[in-house]
Amino acid sequence: MAGSKLSDLCLRISAAGFPASLEGADISVASVNTLEDAVEGELSFLSNRKYLRLLETTRASAVIAAPDVAVPDGRSVVRCADPYAAVTVAIVLLHGHRRHPRWGVSARAEIHPSASIGPNANLAPHVTVGEGAVIGADCTLYPGVHIGDRARLGDGVVLFPNVVVYDECVLGNRVTIHAGTIIGEDGLGYAPVGGKWLKIPQVGRVVIDDDVEIGANCAIDRATLGMTRIGAGSKFSNLVAIGHGTKVGENAMFVALVGVAGSVTVGKNVTLAGQVGLAGHLTVGDGASIGAQSGVAGDVPAGVKYLGAPAVEINEAKRQFIAVQRLPGWSKEVNQRLRDLEAELARLRAEMNGGQT
Amino acid sequence: MAGSKLSDLCLRISAAGFPASLEGADISVASVNTLEDAVEGELSFLSNRKYLRLLETTRASAVIAAPDVAVPDGRSVVRCADPYAAVTVAIVLLHGHRRHPRWGVSARAEIHPSASIGPNANLAPHVTVGEGAVIGADCTLYPGVHIGDRARLGDGVVLFPNVVVYDECVLGNRVTIHAGTIIGEDGLGYAPVGGKWLKIPQVGRVVIDDDVEIGANCAIDRATLGMTRIGAGSKFSNLVAIGHGTKVGENAMFVALVGVAGSVTVGKNVTLAGQVGLAGHLTVGDGASIGAQSGVAGDVPAGVKYLGAPAVEINEAKRQFIAVQRLPGWSKEVNQRLRDLEAELARLRAEMNGGQT
Amino acid sequence: MAGSKLSDLCLRISAAGFPASLEGADISVASVNTLEDAVEGELSFLSNRKYLRLLETTRASAVIAAPDVAVPDGRSVVRCADPYAAVTVAIVLLHGHRRHPRWGVSARAEIHPSASIGPNANLAPHVTVGEGAVIGADCTLYPGVHIGDRARLGDGVVLFPNVVVYDECVLGNRVTIHAGTIIGEDGLGYAPVGGKWLKIPQVGRVVIDDDVEIGANCAIDRATLGMTRIGAGSKFSNLVAIGHGTKVGENAMFVALVGVAGSVTVGKNVTLAGQVGLAGHLTVGDGASIGAQSGVAGDVPAGVKYLGAPAVEINEAKRQFIAVQRLPGWSKEVNQRLRDLEAELARLRAEMNGGQT
Repeated sequence: MAGSKLSDLCLRISAAGFPASLEGADISVASVNTLEDAVEGELSFLSNRKYLRLLETTRASAVIAAPDVAVPDGRSVVRCADPYAAVTVAIVLLHGHRRHPRWGVSARAEIHPSASIGPNANLAPHVTVGEGAVIGADCTLYPGVHIGDRARLGDGVVLFPNVVVYDECVLGNRVTIHAGTIIGEDGLGYAPVGGKWLKIPQVGRVVIDDDVEIGANCAIDRATLGMTRIGAGSKFSNLVAIGHGTKVGENAMFVALVGVAGSVTVGKNVTLAGQVGLAGHLTVGDGASIGAQSGVAGDVPAGVKYLGAPAVEINEAKRQFIAVQRLPGWSKEVNQRLRDLEAELARLRAEMNGGQT
Repeated sequence: MAGSKLSDLCLRISAAGFPASLEGADISVASVNTLEDAVEGELSFLSNRKYLRLLETTRASAVIAAPDVAVPDGRSVVRCADPYAAVTVAIVLLHGHRRHPRWGVSARAEIHPSASIGPNANLAPHVTVGEGAVIGADCTLYPGVHIGDRARLGDGVVLFPNVVVYDECVLGNRVTIHAGTIIGEDGLGYAPVGGKWLKIPQVGRVVIDDDVEIGANCAIDRATLGMTRIGAGSKFSNLVAIGHGTKVGENAMFVALVGVAGSVTVGKNVTLAGQVGLAGHLTVGDGASIGAQSGVAGDVPAGVKYLGAPAVEINEAKRQFIAVQRLPGWSKEVNQRLRDLEAELARLRAEMNGGQT
Repeated sequence: MAGSKLSDLCLRISAAGFPASLEGADISVASVNTLEDAVEGELSFLSNRKYLRLLETTRASAVIAAPDVAVPDGRSVVRCADPYAAVTVAIVLLHGHRRHPRWGVSARAEIHPSASIGPNANLAPHVTVGEGAVIGADCTLYPGVHIGDRARLGDGVVLFPNVVVYDECVLGNRVTIHAGTIIGEDGLGYAPVGGKWLKIPQVGRVVIDDDVEIGANCAIDRATLGMTRIGAGSKFSNLVAIGHGTKVGENAMFVALVGVAGSVTVGKNVTLAGQVGLAGHLTVGDGASIGAQSGVAGDVPAGVKYLGAPAVEINEAKRQFIAVQRLPGWSKEVNQRLRDLEAELARLRAEMNGGQT
C-alpha cells in the first residue's frame, strides 16, 4: 500500500470506462474510507446523495464525487459521473482483493486417494475431499470445507470455512462461496403415503456456473432429477434458500433471506430484494426486479418491477399501500357521508311526500 | 443400475399400493429424469399438468402418467392414478437412496473415551463426540459433525457435514439432518434487568423423534426448561428456526425460512409453507396448513387452511387480497359516486326549496 | 446440585433486586422445571398468565408467582412481583450456566505460530487460528471454529462449533456466539458494469462489542469500508442477517430470521421481532420496537412501536389490519348503499320532475 497519486487514479478509473478528472491538488492517497470514518490522507466518496452533508465534516483529503456536487474548499476532488464505479476502481487499486492464507495441501486435509487435485491447490487443515472428486487449478478451500464424492470444482474456486458441497455437484470457474453455505442438500421431496411422508431419493445435483458468488449460510437444494442451476455471474447474499430443480439465469442479484421454492425458472439479470419469496413452478422474466419481502405467487413478465404480497407491478403496489394506509380514516368518512346522504334523502322524501299530501 | 423392465416396474408400483399398468412396449429403463432433461432410454413422468406440453417434446422413451393423460405415440406409458407416488417407487428402484462414504471410525475423529459408540459406526474425520455421548448402531456422521456432551443418538442416524448437536440433546432412530443445521443452541432467554439483558441459563434440551428429516442450516433452540420437541416423521426444509420449548407434532412439513417462536404447540400433520412465522405461546391444531409468508398471531384450529399476515382462513384471506387490489380504483369510484350523489341531492334540495319558496 | 432451601432462594432473589418472600413450607428444591413437566420436589413458576390453569395440575412442590396469583393449597409459594426475574435467579442458582468441555489447547487445533493465545485457553480439536490473530484470556473455542488472519478476540469469549470469524474482525470481552454463525463475510458489494456485477473488495471489518450473544447460523457482513458494529450487550436469535456497514446500538434484541440491510443505523435498546426486515441506509431511534414480519422502509423515531409492511405506528397498523379484514364485507355494503341511494335519488328526481310537469 504505497498509495497512488490522484492523477494516476483518474487514469485508472478512466481506463476502466468511467472518465474521471482531477480538481485540486494531485496528492497521494493510500486508502479509501467512508466520509464519516476517513482520516487525513484518505480518499472518500459521495455516491448516495443522502449523505451530502457529510462532505462538510469529513476529514478525508480527497473525495470522489459527481460533476455537479459542490465539495467544500480544501479537498481534492476526483470528478466522475459514476462515483460508485470510480470508488470500486480505487478500492481495487489501493486495497486489492483479499489475500488468502497459503496452506498448500495441508497434511491435516483428508483427501480421498481417488480425488483429482489441480495445480496450485490451497487446501486448509480439516478440509475433506471425497472419492472421485475433482478440484481444478488454483482453488482455495478454507478449513472445514467438505467436497462430496464425485463433486467437481473448476479453476480458481474459493470456498470459505465450513462450506459443504454435496456429492455430484458441480462448481464452475472462479466460483466464490462464503462460510457455512451448503450446496446440494436434499430438497423437500416426499410423497404423502398413508398419512406419512415417503422420501423420494434426490438423485439430481446442483450446477453453479462461472463467476458466481454466494454469501454465508445459504442452502441450495440438489434437484430431484436433473439439476438445480445458478447462472454465470449471479451474486447471492446470506441465508438464501433455493429449492430443488430451480434454474436461475445469469447475473442474478438475490439479497439476504430470499426463499425460492422448487422448479422455478428465473431469467437473466433478475433482482430479488431481501426476504422475497417465490412460490414453486413459476417463471420470472429477464430483468425483472422484485421489491423487499414480496411474495410472488404467479409468473412475472420480463423487465417489470414487482412489489407486495401477493406481488404486483410496483406502482400498483404503492397505490395499494397508500389506499390501505388511508383506509381506516377514509372508511369512517365514507360511512359518515353515506349516513348523511341517507338522512338527507329521507328528509327530502318525507318533505316531498308531505308536500304531496 | 442394470435397469428394469417396465412390466417389473409396474409390479413394484402396484405392490407399493398404487395400481399401475403398462401401455406399449415393455422396454427396459435404467434411470428416471425430468421431461425436459430425459434422453432416449430414460423414464420420465407427468405429475403437475402445468407441464403437459412437455410430453410432446420429451425424448424420454417411457413416461408415467395418469390414466386420462394423452401421451403422443411412440412412447411406452406406465399408467397410474398417482404418478408422483409411482415415480417415487421408480426412483427408489432405479437409483436407490444415497450411498454414504465408508469411514469406519476415522482416526481423525475425536471421540471422548467415555462416549458409547454403537456397532457399524461410520464416523468421518473431524467428527467430535463429547463426554458421555451415546451413538446408536449404524450411524453415519459426516466430517465436521459435533456431538455435545451427554447427547444421545438412536440407530441409523445420518448427520451431514458440520451438523452440531449440543449437549444433552436426543435424536431418535433414523433421524437425518442435513449439513450445517444446529440442534440445541440456547434460545433468546433473557430477563430485562436494569436496562440490560440478564441471561437465563437454558437448561432444557431438544428431543427429535424417529424418522425426522431436517434440511440444511436450520436452528432448533433447546428449551429453557424441559424440552423442545420435533415429532416423529416430521420433515423440515432449509433455514428453519424453531424457538425454545416449542413442540411440533408428528409428520409436520415445514418449508424453507419458516420461523416458529418459543413455547408454541403445533399439532400433527401440520404444513407451514415458506417464510411462515408463528408468534410465541400459540397452538396450531392437527392438520392445519398455513400458506407462504403468513404471520400467525393467534391459535389456529385443527384442519383449517390459513393465509396472510395476520393469517386468517384462506378464502377470507383471498377475499381480502382481492379487495385490497381493487381498493385504489374502487375508492376513487366511491368518492366520485358520493360527490355525484351529494351534488344531485343538493340540487334537488335547492330545487325543492326553490319550489317551496 | 445439592439443592436449595426456599428461604435461601428468597434471600438470593431479593439480593438480586427483586424482593421475594416465602409462603408455606421451607422445603429444599434441586431443580426448576415448567409447570407441565415438573415432578415432585421441583420448583416451577408462573410468569405468563395464559398458563394460570396449569397451577391446578402441576406436580411441582413449589412455585414462584406474583403476589396476586392464587396458588392451590399444598404447594410452597415464592412470592415475587417479577416472577420471570425470580426464576432466572433460581435457574442460575440451581442449575448454573453451561460448563464447557475442557480441551486445553488441543494438539488437533491448528494455530498459526504468529497468533497470540491468552491464558487459560480452551481450544478444541479442529479449531483453526490464523496468522497474527489474537485470542484473549479464558476463551473457549469449540470444534470447527475458524479465526481468520489478524482477527482479535477479547477475554472470556465463547464460540460454539463451526463459528467462523473472518480476517480482521474484532470481538469484545465475553462475546458468546452460537454454532454455525459467520462473522465478517463479504457483503453484497458490486458495481453494475456492462451488464455484469463488478466486485468491490470489502476491506472493512466487523466489530462486536462486549457481552453480545448471537444465536446459531447468523451472518454478519463485514463493512465495505470502516466497520459493521454490534453494540455492547446486544442479543440476537438465530438466522439473523446483518448487512455491510450497519451499526447496531447497545442492548438490541433481534429475533430469528431478522434481516437488516447495509448502512443502517440502529439506536440503543431496539427490539426487532421475528422476520423483520429493515431497508438500507435508514435510521431506527433508541428504544424503538418493531413487530414481527414488519418491513421498514423509512426512518423510525425513538421510542415508538412499529408494525406492518410498510411499517407504521402499531396502533395505526392495527387499525389498518382491522380495516382490511372488514374490507370485503364493508365494500359490498358500501356498494349496496350507493346503489340504493342512487336509485332512491333517481326516483325522487323523476317524481319531482314528474311533479313539475
